[in-house]
Amino acid sequence: MDNKKNKVGSANITMLTDLYQLTMMQGYYKMGFNQQAVFDLFFREREDLNYCIFCGLHTVVNYINNLHFAKSDIDYLESLGIFDKLFLKYLAEFRFSGSIQSVVEGEVVFANEPMIVVKAPIIEAQLVETALLNMIGYQSLVASKASRIVFAAKGQQVVEFGVRRAFGYDAATNGSRAAVIGGCIGTSNVEAGKQYGINVYGTHSHSWVLSFDSEYKAFESYANVYKDSCLLLVDTYDTLKSGVPNAIKIFDQLKSQGHKPIGIRLDSGDLAYLSKMSRNLLDKAGHCDAKIFASGDIDEFVIEALHSQGAKIDIWGVGGKLITGGSNQLLGCVYKLVAIESGNTFTPKMKYSDNLAKTTTPGIKQVYRLYDDSGMTIADLIALQDEYIPKPLTIVHPTDRWKKLKIDNYTKRQLLVDIFVDGKLVYNLPSLQQTISKADDELSKFWDEYKRITTPHIYKVDLSDQLYFLKNKMLTE
Amino acid sequence: MDNKKNKVGSANITMLTDLYQLTMMQGYYKMGFNQQAVFDLFFREREDLNYCIFCGLHTVVNYINNLHFAKSDIDYLESLGIFDKLFLKYLAEFRFSGSIQSVVEGEVVFANEPMIVVKAPIIEAQLVETALLNMIGYQSLVASKASRIVFAAKGQQVVEFGVRRAFGYDAATNGSRAAVIGGCIGTSNVEAGKQYGINVYGTHSHSWVLSFDSEYKAFESYANVYKDSCLLLVDTYDTLKSGVPNAIKIFDQLKSQGHKPIGIRLDSGDLAYLSKMSRNLLDKAGHCDAKIFASGDIDEFVIEALHSQGAKIDIWGVGGKLITGGSNQLLGCVYKLVAIESGNTFTPKMKYSDNLAKTTTPGIKQVYRLYDDSGMTIADLIALQDEYIPKPLTIVHPTDRWKKLKIDNYTKRQLLVDIFVDGKLVYNLPSLQQTISKADDELSKFWDEYKRITTPHIYKVDLSDQLYFLKNKMLTE
Repeated sequence: MDNKKNKVGSANITMLTDLYQLTMMQGYYKMGFNQQAVFDLFFREREDLNYCIFCGLHTVVNYINNLHFAKSDIDYLESLGIFDKLFLKYLAEFRFSGSIQSVVEGEVVFANEPMIVVKAPIIEAQLVETALLNMIGYQSLVASKASRIVFAAKGQQVVEFGVRRAFGYDAATNGSRAAVIGGCIGTSNVEAGKQYGINVYGTHSHSWVLSFDSEYKAFESYANVYKDSCLLLVDTYDTLKSGVPNAIKIFDQLKSQGHKPIGIRLDSGDLAYLSKMSRNLLDKAGHCDAKIFASGDIDEFVIEALHSQGAKIDIWGVGGKLITGGSNQLLGCVYKLVAIESGNTFTPKMKYSDNLAKTTTPGIKQVYRLYDDSGMTIADLIALQDEYIPKPLTIVHPTDRWKKLKIDNYTKRQLLVDIFVDGKLVYNLPSLQQTISKADDELSKFWDEYKRITTPHIYKVDLSDQLYFLKNKMLTE
Repeated sequence: MDNKKNKVGSANITMLTDLYQLTMMQGYYKMGFNQQAVFDLFFREREDLNYCIFCGLHTVVNYINNLHFAKSDIDYLESLGIFDKLFLKYLAEFRFSGSIQSVVEGEVVFANEPMIVVKAPIIEAQLVETALLNMIGYQSLVASKASRIVFAAKGQQVVEFGVRRAFGYDAATNGSRAAVIGGCIGTSNVEAGKQYGINVYGTHSHSWVLSFDSEYKAFESYANVYKDSCLLLVDTYDTLKSGVPNAIKIFDQLKSQGHKPIGIRLDSGDLAYLSKMSRNLLDKAGHCDAKIFASGDIDEFVIEALHSQGAKIDIWGVGGKLITGGSNQLLGCVYKLVAIESGNTFTPKMKYSDNLAKTTTPGIKQVYRLYDDSGMTIADLIALQDEYIPKPLTIVHPTDRWKKLKIDNYTKRQLLVDIFVDGKLVYNLPSLQQTISKADDELSKFWDEYKRITTPHIYKVDLSDQLYFLKNKMLTE
């Protein structure tokens, strides 16, 4: 993997917003309402996703840095007939002057934890909601899905193969990046390779085989060009009667010439049965070192099922079910007002709901991760930003108040760091390799029980005393 | 809706491809293998999607028109160490010289029908596979999902609200466009509005309400700015005890000043119950003309369920479950080699599979839609391109040969039209409005029984005699 630095690009996607952000902005503008507001971006609890790998901050940084309305944007908005001249003039001069805290890319995060906190005049904070949700929601979904798939693969390598299934160009490209942050070793997507320095993988398809008079000729022709990176797709006609025997002949020849072929790829049929039979054939022919690569509708559940049946697969190519989130569908982040400036202070704000889990947590927050002596995580604590965190500490379940945990000893780390302060970028985007390592390191500090695909142990994310009392007070008022 | 003409843009996304396309291309290049090949792009049969609205051709046209490797692309490919100088020189000079037939955007298409047919030297035809699948797969998914949702809405208006849930920038923007082709009346996405002239909609969010001291003040402030486009979100605190009564007070005032407010929006809670109760309150207060707008996790199944419970909803805002395909997840198009030049003719090619439904249909094809005297569709027929279609016609199920239908009288229409001929664009992209009308008109020629959301009647897509015999002959050989 290239150690390419993430660059701050120059694309302007200011208009990627919901119309209601602009109608509200005009409302605030006309009222002269320019109090600072604080918004939390987080995802809600869900049964199918026990943890999330935060991803997408690099695009957020580019977006905020380039946030401005071009002349053509203003012209278009004027044409709608709902915005007046003064407000359009304000938009034409608009720059983001607020502050943004965020967890870093590759961070392990949980439901209800603020992943991004935007503090800005409400008119500015409102504008950026849509794009932030769009970027973080998708990229974090893919990084999280990749992490689950890589966990299921138990040390076997996973390659991201979904460019053709991705929902457009930047989904493919930022999706590939998210997938390697989630633990994939590379991608088939050449654009992602170029743009982000991600390792690229790929050999040939069924059409290559079909375009020759015979499978053997197709393999031979491929091997002539790729002698030392020869990986043959063996399921075009009949995997066990034709594909693997033909591959073995080619491997025999390549090895006799001193080359080292990689192995075979299976893309259809029953991967458990075919991989075991193929392994037998390869081993009997003396190709114990030939790898078996599997692709075709794979996700974490398929990998677990194939593992449990003793499938002999070495490397996994995962496509549509990774790059589109597959069974996890979408992350569904929300961006909620949690405080608003009034006088010299901030008044906490809360969105009520009949469903307590959907009632937001008010106040300006920090998230702490607590570690034990061995460096493993104990729990996360959502607290008020300026709150003192005592030691020993008793943490309490956010809704089920009788669930308590007393922690005598711990070290803590703040997850939210400054990205923009008063409109100025103060954060150095790490290299992709650093982000990959960050995700990998942090994930290793969580017990596997938390990462299990089905019925995982639920990691504790509790509210500090002050935050709990604040929320409770507002609920009962 | 603006009658903006679809423009042929200039973005270059040539590198949006799988690495294996380039490794295969180098293989063909080194062998001097430059026969013409024909590939069909289609989607496979699936239980959850009875028909599809084809979408994405406008991006395909832009892509093919701008297809070339930039200097930085070549430099990157060279850095991988797997491509030799001669091949890189070939790539640097690469232009697409082939021909592309396609169904037009807005066309109703079915599983296994070639939606795009690429005929080009195999080295060129191979390159474009990935991007074509990426573009058509996503945009057709969203257009199809929108069509299902609009069908479920039974004439009620549907607005696309998913920009924050979309998988990136171009997914949001092309997704909004696809949604209106599928029947939505507009979008909340301002960029899509600007880029494609789509009607944009939006009012205010919960944060607007929370940023004021009271809901009433928030509504009043909003109504002061948007007197004649006033639509109030009523579920921030308590929909029936606070939201709707406050909205009624505002509507009373607006009407007394001669204005015409639009209505209310419900975004949470039980939409059947809340809409019925809200309707009652509004009607009793004399606001029978106030519309009820519903949003929040809506798709075709939710709409059908709410309809069946007599929900009083007038307009639907549909977000994540539309722009990401929701329950339909992904279209999963494939691009299969169906013929290859040999001498003066083309040899049909077929990918075999144990599963007959997954075995491709060989040969260069045309798709015919057959209509009865009243203009309603009877069936589609996939035939060889130069095949004579007799009248009367007996059509036969593609796999279950005993299922036959004799059609005495019909008119037919070819679905595949020329887009590129020998590398030259010969197709005028219609305006978005024309495409919307096309989809609407064509869909109206199908009986509702085919469009039903659950257990729809299956529309007949049969193979011509010649195509059936060709496939059968190749299968038995």
